[in-house]
Amino acid sequence: MALERSAEHGYALVELANLRAADFDLDRLGNKASDLGLGVTMTMGLAPDADVSSGDETVAAHGRAELETAIKAARDVGATSLGGIIYSAHQKYTHMPSPDQWQRSLAAVGQAADIGCECGVSLVLEIVNRFETNLLNTTAQGLKFLDALGDDAVKLHLDTFHMNIEETDPEGAIRMAGDRLGYFHVGENNRGYLGDGVIDFDRIFDALLDIGYDGDVVYESFSSAVVDEKLSRACAIWRDTWTESAPLAAHARQFLALKYDEAQRRRRNLRAAG
Amino acid sequence: MALERSAEHGYALVELANLRAADFDLDRLGNKASDLGLGVTMTMGLAPDADVSSGDETVAAHGRAELETAIKAARDVGATSLGGIIYSAHQKYTHMPSPDQWQRSLAAVGQAADIGCECGVSLVLEIVNRFETNLLNTTAQGLKFLDALGDDAVKLHLDTFHMNIEETDPEGAIRMAGDRLGYFHVGENNRGYLGDGVIDFDRIFDALLDIGYDGDVVYESFSSAVVDEKLSRACAIWRDTWTESAPLAAHARQFLALKYDEAQRRRRNLRAAG
Amino acid sequence: MALERSAEHGYALVELANLRAADFDLDRLGNKASDLGLGVTMTMGLAPDADVSSGDETVAAHGRAELETAIKAARDVGATSLGGIIYSAHQKYTHMPSPDQWQRSLAAVGQAADIGCECGVSLVLEIVNRFETNLLNTTAQGLKFLDALGDDAVKLHLDTFHMNIEETDPEGAIRMAGDRLGYFHVGENNRGYLGDGVIDFDRIFDALLDIGYDGDVVYESFSSAVVDEKLSRACAIWRDTWTESAPLAAHARQFLALKYDEAQRRRRNLRAAG
Amino acid sequence: MALERSAEHGYALVELANLRAADFDLDRLGNKASDLGLGVTMTMGLAPDADVSSGDETVAAHGRAELETAIKAARDVGATSLGGIIYSAHQKYTHMPSPDQWQRSLAAVGQAADIGCECGVSLVLEIVNRFETNLLNTTAQGLKFLDALGDDAVKLHLDTFHMNIEETDPEGAIRMAGDRLGYFHVGENNRGYLGDGVIDFDRIFDALLDIGYDGDVVYESFSSAVVDEKLSRACAIWRDTWTESAPLAAHARQFLALKYDEAQRRRRNLRAAG
Repeated sequence: MALERSAEHGYALVELANLRAADFDLDRLGNKASDLGLGVTMTMGLAPDADVSSGDETVAAHGRAELETAIKAARDVGATSLGGIIYSAHQKYTHMPSPDQWQRSLAAVGQAADIGCECGVSLVLEIVNRFETNLLNTTAQGLKFLDALGDDAVKLHLDTFHMNIEETDPEGAIRMAGDRLGYFHVGENNRGYLGDGVIDFDRIFDALLDIGYDGDVVYESFSSAVVDEKLSRACAIWRDTWTESAPLAAHARQFLALKYDEAQRRRRNLRAAG
Repeated sequence: MALERSAEHGYALVELANLRAADFDLDRLGNKASDLGLGVTMTMGLAPDADVSSGDETVAAHGRAELETAIKAARDVGATSLGGIIYSAHQKYTHMPSPDQWQRSLAAVGQAADIGCECGVSLVLEIVNRFETNLLNTTAQGLKFLDALGDDAVKLHLDTFHMNIEETDPEGAIRMAGDRLGYFHVGENNRGYLGDGVIDFDRIFDALLDIGYDGDVVYESFSSAVVDEKLSRACAIWRDTWTESAPLAAHARQFLALKYDEAQRRRRNLRAAG
Repeated sequence: MALERSAEHGYALVELANLRAADFDLDRLGNKASDLGLGVTMTMGLAPDADVSSGDETVAAHGRAELETAIKAARDVGATSLGGIIYSAHQKYTHMPSPDQWQRSLAAVGQAADIGCECGVSLVLEIVNRFETNLLNTTAQGLKFLDALGDDAVKLHLDTFHMNIEETDPEGAIRMAGDRLGYFHVGENNRGYLGDGVIDFDRIFDALLDIGYDGDVVYESFSSAVVDEKLSRACAIWRDTWTESAPLAAHARQFLALKYDEAQRRRRNLRAAG
Repeated sequence: MALERSAEHGYALVELANLRAADFDLDRLGNKASDLGLGVTMTMGLAPDADVSSGDETVAAHGRAELETAIKAARDVGATSLGGIIYSAHQKYTHMPSPDQWQRSLAAVGQAADIGCECGVSLVLEIVNRFETNLLNTTAQGLKFLDALGDDAVKLHLDTFHMNIEETDPEGAIRMAGDRLGYFHVGENNRGYLGDGVIDFDRIFDALLDIGYDGDVVYESFSSAVVDEKLSRACAIWRDTWTESAPLAAHARQFLALKYDEAQRRRRNLRAAG
């Protein structure tokens, strides 16, 4: 039903959470999306007991297995990419990041990228705020990680909500990422309706156009009214800025189209010598 | 030494963490500040095992005792107010807030306010982002809490860093708080140097002038280079945007003076009929 | 045809230029608008040879006669208000404003307001940038003028394009105007498509909601492709940021609805205590 | 005296108006500036009777002679560049720009550039708002003009006050100009104190750093209290946002240093991988 409604609202793509083959008929979902003309992507955040960056090898091994399972589920559902916090747990850490943690994460992502390559699923690493990982909080950290990884197929996944907390210059971060940006989340500062809050989406779209970004742009919003309780708690969704998803989806579609058009016109205006 | 340097940089006030009488000679500190012409305030965040909003009465009682100790330490060091997260623990919660939790918090704050009244220490409740409490994340929630409390001496403590995550309209929040704003933190979105990031301090100062705010304005920044490790971890300070505190302090003093002057001139310009 | 298209695009109101009874069948236009459910307003800028603030009594008398004619045309076409630069000429002045000029303007506007009162047409005074009048460039100047006038029926006509040049705090200007704001123009900084440029319409709509403004909000844009040549030259329209008016009108309608919705939701978010 | 005070305030450069050899001892001024360690530049706006773009050859010839005189005065006073509106008159035009006007301007600027080359004075063309010329209102128009000119020594002179009226994307304009930006004016939207108004100087400095601009950055403000009456009227300075130049100069120096430092730190923050 969510797929049908997304298509009705004019979306070209749905982003799925990491679905378990035991709980969902992935083939059927993938075919349904395909029939509706919808692209599919997948994102996830590793659980604390599946932290690939952990010094506890049992935990880390569990994490690597989870990544493999997720990549295969992504393949089975027809997703072209797997993003999110796939290089550490999705949690508020209570210890400082360490070089060893970084190395373990790097190794696990490298191994997962190879599996992704076989499965036709590209990995994108989500840069998130300090309260949701201790490892990759800024674009610069993400690029350093990619440099160490040395696999051009792995790219960054940036998100305006997180950049609003961590980056001094979100549009500069997008420009710096350039062609290593592989996936993009738009979200408002309070994770509610786009445009209601403090994020300057004009500058975000200007930067995306400046780097010639032609990847996916996905809107993310949270409300305990519709979002899985576990994810709501991990993301600290204690109050609902909305309860009805249909008007939210309609608004976001219109907002994004308008901002994109404005940014394109702004570029044309800028260059028009009259 | 920190008191002396603060005075040298031209600050009129220092905010102290919740100091233990066992570890610090509070009288001596208070006298030192007084000799230097420095006002003193205190802030704290209750530890998870001292959560006054907890349903575990042992934990909650511990929290109430901690509050009483802190208020008396504030009195002893000559602080005029005690702020921060004094209505719940300072932590990433993993459960939704509940009406019971809110009531327990209310009762504990009410009791603490009475003690504060006897000690000449006013309480201010810091509205913080979702990752640092689950109870009071927005100004509207804080005002509702104050309404239920019914003690005019207790006021809100707002902070630009937190508002940047939670409020859709930070300057509107300040205007809405009006004379119930009792304490104010300025901090950049990445908790580093003021002015480097995305927060629009012009609008913040406009709003403070509009409501005739004449309380304290305190700059808060974090770096593991100088901040207590426990607090750094609670606040998720995984990277240092600065290491030297002297230039940081000098810059913040100059920045705040400039922004305040600009806002005052902006008001005069606005009203000047020429 | 313009009336029909405005109605088709969902506009509730059309603003007409100062139409001459000799050139237009005002009754027919008014009836047409009425049939389409469109409200009507009128704006104008006095020509240099009809400057009511002029020290040359021939010119000033011509100006007063022009105002009277315009008010009657407004009445005949069913317009509820007459706005624009009706207190001086619409021109780049080459001399400093003087107290005498101000007094002459005041007297002429007072006299016109009386005629307007008889005709059921309220006057609104447009505050415009320094290059288009030398008399009322800021809201503060406008309010001082209204104070001296002492006629509550006359109100201010503010415009975002002009405020962007003259006001240090456009939203503060709207708040200061309060219930003396009678008419409102939205226009982008380059007089083209809304949202393409530097004006922060979020703050503008916040301020309009804060003062409970329930008057007209009219979009104004210029292109020599469709605008009268005389007016284009007076407004210095040397290059066209657009040539097709239909997509412009459709976009503005959508943009304004979206911004208004966002501002309303922002207000609700601000006040929602969860 | 103005030179001495500029040096005292810590400025590295003074911009002089087009001084007449008949009225000023240019050698003495130049030596004085040199003794004080001050660089010198010159700007001007051609008068309507000296419009090099005019179709009236008498007027145009007068303009070309004025340019030559100004270049030689610039040389004599030790100025390194001549900027401002040197390609048309500084006036509110009342006719549309024409291809012929553009060609006449181009020829005159080309001829002046040759004289400038001999005199060691580089020409920079100021892009100004629609009310002050009809020919070069945007950076794109300026770059097209430079392309047609084909003289790499002639560059653009951009100004934040003018860009705030004409550019949909001021920082994009700076990036587009790149190494063809030769001179830069900072001015607030109301031509008063920097930082009081609506211009986003953070983005301006980010863009200047991004293009590696190492030319002059000159603050321009107007008040009839100190500015020549003729220029005040040409620039439509009808009200004074300040009357004392010393605090204005001190503030601007501090503001610019702060913004420059912030932008540099923002760049470092952006790139620091921690």
